[in-house]
Amino acid sequence: MRILEDELIERIRRRIPSSEGGALRLGIGHDAALIHAQGWDWVVTCDQFLEGAHFLADKHPPQSVGYKALIRAASDVVAMAARPRFFLLSLALPAERTGAWLNQMLSGMARASKSLGLRLAGGDTARSAGDGARIALNVMVLGEARRGDGIGRAGARPDDGIYVTGILGRAQLGLELILREMSGQRSYRKLLAPHYYPTLSLDFALWLGRHYLPSAMMDISDGLSTDLRRLCRASGVGARIYADQLPLVAVPGSLQGIPELDPLTLALHGGEDYGLLFTAPMRRVSRIPNIFGRTRITRIGEIVRGSGVKIVAAGGKVSSLIPSGWDHFAKR
Amino acid sequence: MRILEDELIERIRRRIPSSEGGALRLGIGHDAALIHAQGWDWVVTCDQFLEGAHFLADKHPPQSVGYKALIRAASDVVAMAARPRFFLLSLALPAERTGAWLNQMLSGMARASKSLGLRLAGGDTARSAGDGARIALNVMVLGEARRGDGIGRAGARPDDGIYVTGILGRAQLGLELILREMSGQRSYRKLLAPHYYPTLSLDFALWLGRHYLPSAMMDISDGLSTDLRRLCRASGVGARIYADQLPLVAVPGSLQGIPELDPLTLALHGGEDYGLLFTAPMRRVSRIPNIFGRTRITRIGEIVRGSGVKIVAAGGKVSSLIPSGWDHFAKR
Repeated sequence: MRILEDELIERIRRRIPSSEGGALRLGIGHDAALIHAQGWDWVVTCDQFLEGAHFLADKHPPQSVGYKALIRAASDVVAMAARPRFFLLSLALPAERTGAWLNQMLSGMARASKSLGLRLAGGDTARSAGDGARIALNVMVLGEARRGDGIGRAGARPDDGIYVTGILGRAQLGLELILREMSGQRSYRKLLAPHYYPTLSLDFALWLGRHYLPSAMMDISDGLSTDLRRLCRASGVGARIYADQLPLVAVPGSLQGIPELDPLTLALHGGEDYGLLFTAPMRRVSRIPNIFGRTRITRIGEIVRGSGVKIVAAGGKVSSLIPSGWDHFAKR
Repeated sequence: MRILEDELIERIRRRIPSSEGGALRLGIGHDAALIHAQGWDWVVTCDQFLEGAHFLADKHPPQSVGYKALIRAASDVVAMAARPRFFLLSLALPAERTGAWLNQMLSGMARASKSLGLRLAGGDTARSAGDGARIALNVMVLGEARRGDGIGRAGARPDDGIYVTGILGRAQLGLELILREMSGQRSYRKLLAPHYYPTLSLDFALWLGRHYLPSAMMDISDGLSTDLRRLCRASGVGARIYADQLPLVAVPGSLQGIPELDPLTLALHGGEDYGLLFTAPMRRVSRIPNIFGRTRITRIGEIVRGSGVKIVAAGGKVSSLIPSGWDHFAKR
């Protein structure tokens, strides 16, 4: 539904009262909603994690499913420079998944919740019935930010620097190995972790918010080409990025030559890295570190007037970057 | 999954950090979570509304599906004497439902959101893929209560009076007519509204909270026999109710004699009325009105020491009330 999503959201927005204003500072179209409370802002988001669309029950370990379902939703809160505090879990399960599968899924989810200091506050369970019944997880995360610390995706301005955290394309490389049935090979096993158990840069995101450094921020969940375009659209600007500045995934020599495993392709279009994508005004650029704890920060380009994202190749050739990020498993 | 639900929730609770404490005043096991903010409490809940489990796409108008999906989740917030403020919507749709069906569903949801003053703050959309792909709606509602006004279900004490709002069994009567293919008959048409478009007693719930009258409160979503037992279990008490005091649904003469349409059966076990079930200490009983605006309030019994729910028949015979509330469409 990736292609349809923007149109769908527009239809929903037109029909259901959803205007920003009053306590609702940021609503639809941001990673999470931002709600003013007394002195604090609450940041809420929900994300589905569906069998067949977001994971494959016969290929993904249940621990990874539970871990990622929570990380994915929490990432939207973290990307607004808010601290995830509580979550709700809605589960729809076919009967045959309520035993060992569920236990393992929950242990993966517990790992994610502990790593972020998140507490489960409630939820809902239902049976997923009928032929072809599938597993559906829905996670709602509630986070908090000091008033004014939360960061949306609409504030980027021309000349702002564009930054990403971490390495781009690592999660997609893992997924490609799994889909190619190569995940069992011992030498590739360590390449799977970024796909199974991605980590969030919570401390860095909070630090950025506390120092009011980013003009806009979001997470890279669907791939840089897709997510950077979203940031630009929300901000009413364009972007130029440089291929030779991207922090590319390292692809082992034995896998080189496979087009989908080209490091630049993986970095531009690969999803689920859950790194941060943010922009910073020129006057604050000197305060952005290259490394923060274990988080690597890389400047990859700058915001420009206009619209659309251009990529400058190593040789200087400029071309439009077509958003072709993660469409779940739609095209497979 | 009704039978499994308690066991499932217990397993989830054991595995994922979810203890109450600190800002999390009420968590798993209540209708909604209660979170302390500065001076206010936030109340959050999420509810699934699944094709096949909670509605039948070929029998329920899409407007009713959207309306009820939101009312059902908001009801959990209202039942804690909190005002629903914002909601998030996760949608998983088969491709063929993204057209007219979606538009009509959204218009029903808008009707519910306007009736409660709720604003949509965000959400997630995904394609429901594969054979037998089904519609899944997941609604998260965020409400607010003045500090201390929120009411959980664990505070009932022996000798408290037990109250319900509205008429019991009306929604179930509507559902039975639909399942029996009798919903097209003109004379029965007005009996369907309580099933399609149930209303919440928001003002009364807020009034109760503001005056600290209930010792425990929840909504009747799965039927009185099931929900009263839940309230008793959470409070560590038992209950005695009187058959001749129940506000029974009126069943037309032409439908009498059908066992499932017996008014007492509908009232005790019928789901989805979304009335309030609450208890009040004896010293406050005189302050509970019989009518509040258009909401009828009925005392149906009292809390007793021990456990379990007893029902006293019109002739004085006492028997155990077996919880056999709404199991969605599990047994059909």
